[in-house]
Amino acid sequence: MPRYALELEYDGGGFVGWQRQATGVSVQAVLEAAAARLAGSPTAVVAAGRTDAGVHASGQVAHLDLPRPLDPVRVTAALGFYLQPHPVVVVRAAEVADDFSARFSAIGRRYRYVILNRRVRAALDRDRVWQVSRPLDADAMHAAAQGLLGRHDFTSFRAASCQATSPVRTLDRLDVRRHGELVVVEAAARSFLHHQVRNLVGTLQLVGVGARPVAWPADALAARDRRASGPTAPASGLCLTGVEYDPDPFAD
Amino acid sequence: MPRYALELEYDGGGFVGWQRQATGVSVQAVLEAAAARLAGSPTAVVAAGRTDAGVHASGQVAHLDLPRPLDPVRVTAALGFYLQPHPVVVVRAAEVADDFSARFSAIGRRYRYVILNRRVRAALDRDRVWQVSRPLDADAMHAAAQGLLGRHDFTSFRAASCQATSPVRTLDRLDVRRHGELVVVEAAARSFLHHQVRNLVGTLQLVGVGARPVAWPADALAARDRRASGPTAPASGLCLTGVEYDPDPFAD
Repeated sequence: MPRYALELEYDGGGFVGWQRQATGVSVQAVLEAAAARLAGSPTAVVAAGRTDAGVHASGQVAHLDLPRPLDPVRVTAALGFYLQPHPVVVVRAAEVADDFSARFSAIGRRYRYVILNRRVRAALDRDRVWQVSRPLDADAMHAAAQGLLGRHDFTSFRAASCQATSPVRTLDRLDVRRHGELVVVEAAARSFLHHQVRNLVGTLQLVGVGARPVAWPADALAARDRRASGPTAPASGLCLTGVEYDPDPFAD
Repeated sequence: MPRYALELEYDGGGFVGWQRQATGVSVQAVLEAAAARLAGSPTAVVAAGRTDAGVHASGQVAHLDLPRPLDPVRVTAALGFYLQPHPVVVVRAAEVADDFSARFSAIGRRYRYVILNRRVRAALDRDRVWQVSRPLDADAMHAAAQGLLGRHDFTSFRAASCQATSPVRTLDRLDVRRHGELVVVEAAARSFLHHQVRNLVGTLQLVGVGARPVAWPADALAARDRRASGPTAPASGLCLTGVEYDPDPFAD
């Protein structure tokens, strides 16, 4: 059976997250329903990042197997049609090797977290940002973030529900920059622990408002204790922007 | 009674437009309801731009009178509170002279229209863009747009429902630029006719896909006939981004 990689964009607002759950509609469920209509039989879909409820994706990658070879342009169009009216689309598709796994072949994941830093709540982007009223010092947040880069035990930034066997991860990038009213955090790693990005952002935010010194997030990291770091930032501000593979399945 | 200017941001998606209508909830109605709670009596609100159903605003300006002087910061906060849970916020407020009119004192209005130019429908920004599948030549659209600048009879770009006494307007800016998958149109004028920006965009889009030559929009303008120009672009892509006054009521 030919295997396809899919690049997905979705609005996580109305979903219980990527993964199937009894409590509501998941992105996985609507995508597998669309895939079943295309394949003519039940079809499993595996994603690179199991995004939480309310977390968005502009560059999620998933894979599935189809019973017959199909032009990737037709895979994109047919799944997009069957996915209606859900806010989930296949941006592009590519045929990949049998042993390609969207999850296990991934060598990098990128997330963006957007904070709307103003006193007034968001009207236009209300499901896409975390509104923080107190003025944030983005430069201080960025400086603090640089102390977290590299290979570490990230127990302090890991959700209690995290199912990873090891808390050790290598954080490649954690940039914080201001763009007008927005403070944007860009994070990159081979893989992340559950809630890791949101816990990092919630911790950096305390530095941004001046409640904690720039050196504090690194101290919290060294403590290897979730209670040592900051709160979990809301899901709405988070977006999975890209997943990397070698070779890139979507390279022309 | 002291008068206040309000800068407003709203998501037009769920509204019948700015203006009160029997068919549904308007931005004006929810703002006047909030204002009545703050003032303790019925309070009229006048806006610079009477945006259509589905049209958004990041920089709408309105004015209202309050029975007693109130710190503008408190006006902003109180109206924002009473406006909940609607996707309408007061970004800032300022006390203005008795003869200030958000509508009649305005000397410039700016709109942004965003086209998502890809084959796949939008998932994340589905209520904020017009998705156009065929590749657009943004440079050709921009060149065509420059032929429409200046003072003209814009009958060809005016809705049948337009209530303005004159179809003559002065178009100061109509820029078209590509940013990746997005084609962004920025329009500025002292005032616009009903549907003028959307009709301009619908017309330029025909140039962008190559269905009409670059010189055609200027020919359509010269015809002074709505049938000579292109279709009305969807409301979702349009946003009122700013209104100008002299002096600027929000200048610190």
